[in-house]
Amino acid sequence: MSSGTNILAVFGSTGSIGRNTLEVVRRHPDAFGIRYLTGNSNAELLIEQVHEFRPAAVAVTDPAAVTAVKSAVGELTEVFAGEDGLMEIAARSDYDTMVSSLVGFAGLLPTVTAIRAGKNIALANKETLVVAGEIISRLCSEHGVQLLPIDSEHSAILQCIVGEPGHSVSRIVLTASGGPFRGRSHDELSAVTPEQALRHPNWSMGSKITIDSATLMNKGLEVIEAHWLFSVDADAIDVVVHPQSIIHSMVEFSDGSVKAQLGVPDMKIPIHYALTWPDRLAGDYDRLNMAEIGTLTFEEPDTEAFPCLRLAYDALRAGGTAPAILNAANEIAVAAFLDGQLSFTGIADLIEDSLQNVTAGQADTLEAVIAADTAARSFAAAQIEHIAELNTTTRV
Amino acid sequence: MSSGTNILAVFGSTGSIGRNTLEVVRRHPDAFGIRYLTGNSNAELLIEQVHEFRPAAVAVTDPAAVTAVKSAVGELTEVFAGEDGLMEIAARSDYDTMVSSLVGFAGLLPTVTAIRAGKNIALANKETLVVAGEIISRLCSEHGVQLLPIDSEHSAILQCIVGEPGHSVSRIVLTASGGPFRGRSHDELSAVTPEQALRHPNWSMGSKITIDSATLMNKGLEVIEAHWLFSVDADAIDVVVHPQSIIHSMVEFSDGSVKAQLGVPDMKIPIHYALTWPDRLAGDYDRLNMAEIGTLTFEEPDTEAFPCLRLAYDALRAGGTAPAILNAANEIAVAAFLDGQLSFTGIADLIEDSLQNVTAGQADTLEAVIAADTAARSFAAAQIEHIAELNTTTRV
Repeated sequence: MSSGTNILAVFGSTGSIGRNTLEVVRRHPDAFGIRYLTGNSNAELLIEQVHEFRPAAVAVTDPAAVTAVKSAVGELTEVFAGEDGLMEIAARSDYDTMVSSLVGFAGLLPTVTAIRAGKNIALANKETLVVAGEIISRLCSEHGVQLLPIDSEHSAILQCIVGEPGHSVSRIVLTASGGPFRGRSHDELSAVTPEQALRHPNWSMGSKITIDSATLMNKGLEVIEAHWLFSVDADAIDVVVHPQSIIHSMVEFSDGSVKAQLGVPDMKIPIHYALTWPDRLAGDYDRLNMAEIGTLTFEEPDTEAFPCLRLAYDALRAGGTAPAILNAANEIAVAAFLDGQLSFTGIADLIEDSLQNVTAGQADTLEAVIAADTAARSFAAAQIEHIAELNTTTRV
Repeated sequence: MSSGTNILAVFGSTGSIGRNTLEVVRRHPDAFGIRYLTGNSNAELLIEQVHEFRPAAVAVTDPAAVTAVKSAVGELTEVFAGEDGLMEIAARSDYDTMVSSLVGFAGLLPTVTAIRAGKNIALANKETLVVAGEIISRLCSEHGVQLLPIDSEHSAILQCIVGEPGHSVSRIVLTASGGPFRGRSHDELSAVTPEQALRHPNWSMGSKITIDSATLMNKGLEVIEAHWLFSVDADAIDVVVHPQSIIHSMVEFSDGSVKAQLGVPDMKIPIHYALTWPDRLAGDYDRLNMAEIGTLTFEEPDTEAFPCLRLAYDALRAGGTAPAILNAANEIAVAAFLDGQLSFTGIADLIEDSLQNVTAGQADTLEAVIAADTAARSFAAAQIEHIAELNTTTRV
């Protein structure tokens, strides 16, 4: 391996970001190497990946998958199990960059471990910053670790601010596709099914983030993430709906000038950038042709129909563990919606309910954010059960 | 004056760029100071500017204006006359940055003088680079001089590449408003009057550049300028028509990512940037609101209807003094059009004729580009006379 090779530990290698990361690595074998992979339940794909990339070790969280992976590739690679396995790998010394693409709250502790080990973090798991932004920011500065966002929006902002004086950033404008239900009213949204919500117009992603895109909670989480990544207050972060997803986000500077990063909607481009920043490496991705695209449109987000965006701003302004409560309630609510236990509009209602009823506090220790997460999950789960009971009663 | 003050010599202070520059200075008296001003025939405005900014000296090129300025403010400031006066001021040691906003070929020699005196150049006079790009680039690197474009397009590109590795720029995309005649065919354009051509949809500018915008020659000159400013070949410079003039230009990087600079159409913003680069200074200019703007559109330029753009690419590819010939023929043609001696479509015809009939050569000395300029002007002027004779004959 050449000295310029960025050696990766890909956490969540069987998910959408993980698979795209491996495709970036496949295209640039001199620039990137794979040392570790982790997966949850998709044993078949993880086994394929082990055959192809020959990692030094893998971690698998789903117990059935652990057995399958061990029996298939246990002689080719070390196989670790569960959360402990993730931590074991995160703490290893022989990789350069953690690609943090676990889904939801599960990404937090392995990411913290990697930061403590001094690894740069290519971050797709936005919940890490939403829940523990204060802690993560402090740890990164203590350990000299660079957080490199993989989200196309935050990658866009990172690209817009390279070389610019830090004092000159006056506003961040996150673009949002508006999701599949843009233009619908709150009432129209109450009957939306999981199948409808899972059809995202521009990006092919996992189911959690796709539902978050449909409710605009994904954009709300990105607002909180942007606050921590770029040290910008809630009042200086705007969201504009841009259905074509060509402008990935914008930065306004103190002289009124605005910079934007644009590209075809392909997650490989921001992944590639996170792994090469601050340099750029030539990559054979689709090129943008503006004349072919023809028209870009922009509109204000409708926070009446999509209250999740407003709730995220509220949580960010409330501070402390409020974003952790927001995030936990959202995870429970989305799972319940996908499970048919909660209506689409019920997602925001449940989150609002949780923010009002679960007490927020300081978010300066992992224990505090984990406690807030746990409390919010319990509250939200109890509410879901309550709703289910009501539905049963009504049916009878 | 504080040590951080950028002391300016504004060449062409009574023109559009000059007046906008003075407005930027007016708003930021701590950041910028005026040491020298120059004007052509607008004595009245120059006298006002002398009263307001109290420059150490001014230069005036029009003989009648020299007399008027001397008698009005000759006791307040030194007044130099003619081309020699411009050179006298350009060579002075007690200013930091030349704002080069003379119109046309006249900007070349004073700019060369300022570069030789080691001054940074805030460049609005694009003809300087079109005609003598090779010489100017060499002089700038010899004298450690920074060329800072004021054109909104080139300012956009400069802003997009700050902090980026030089090797990573793969394409420049200049946006063009398309001018007032976008969508018209070549035949429809033959009857266009100067009054119609002088109505630019987005920018308020001088008459030469407004006609150049209507023919797309302005964009052609910008293509050549971009080549010299950013060391990018003709094949890697694209033009896209973007009638709203919100995206001022774009840069494509080798990884497929694109960056754009956007803003309200206000020349003060790129002027302000050129005078503060690579820092940014807070400025109270209008802010961009994308949701309010709503729609941005993009289309390929129509080089059948607007052959000037194609001719500029041809001249850039031909190299040597071909761009100087293009520029000289264009200056003569635009003046003749404004004078009613040439039709709108005759402008491109005359330029093409000049490129075919005036012999191009090496452009490595000022003498060579001046000779090419002179030869092209003579040829074009003779053609105009010939056309005038034909018209007279026809009328008889």
